[in-house]
Amino acid sequence: MDGFQFRLARLEGDFVWHSHPDTDEAFLVMDGQLRIDFRDGATTLAEGEMLIVPKGVEHKPFAESECLVMVFVKEGTVNTGDAPAGELTTDPEARI
Amino acid sequence: MDGFQFRLARLEGDFVWHSHPDTDEAFLVMDGQLRIDFRDGATTLAEGEMLIVPKGVEHKPFAESECLVMVFVKEGTVNTGDAPAGELTTDPEARI
Repeated sequence: MDGFQFRLARLEGDFVWHSHPDTDEAFLVMDGQLRIDFRDGATTLAEGEMLIVPKGVEHKPFAESECLVMVFVKEGTVNTGDAPAGELTTDPEARI
Repeated sequence: MDGFQFRLARLEGDFVWHSHPDTDEAFLVMDGQLRIDFRDGATTLAEGEMLIVPKGVEHKPFAESECLVMVFVKEGTVNTGDAPAGELTTDPEARI
């Protein structure tokens, strides 16, 4: 909507360290628990809790067990941001 | 974030018919059930479901019993849109 996208993601285990130079990124936990590590600490989100990671801030999502998360970012944003493309990188144009 | 706002709203009963000429509006149901009436029909959202109402489209949220909804719109959007300000109108600059 209006140049932004909602993405529903299923996370388990460690994501990669990355940042998004051009977009803030909002995480809203729909089911389970999500920890977001920062270089200077970590925040744990329970179901129904949300956090906005400002553009340019390095972070690494982690879920000990499967977690369902709504992610909100600018359209076309690569999920792994400035990290080298890898197994966790998905097509930003994919729709469900 | 980036000119948009997440707003957590508790709804019960009938909202007013309105539209937002300048912003799409996303509804994500966190708890309960929300019906959104349109001039040509209605959609009911269960917990975890979402809907984006395009800018300019008339709609009226309705919750038979209390419902917790995350609403995502451009910053400064008046919740009752183009409807006359009334009891349901809230300050778009209020923060929680």
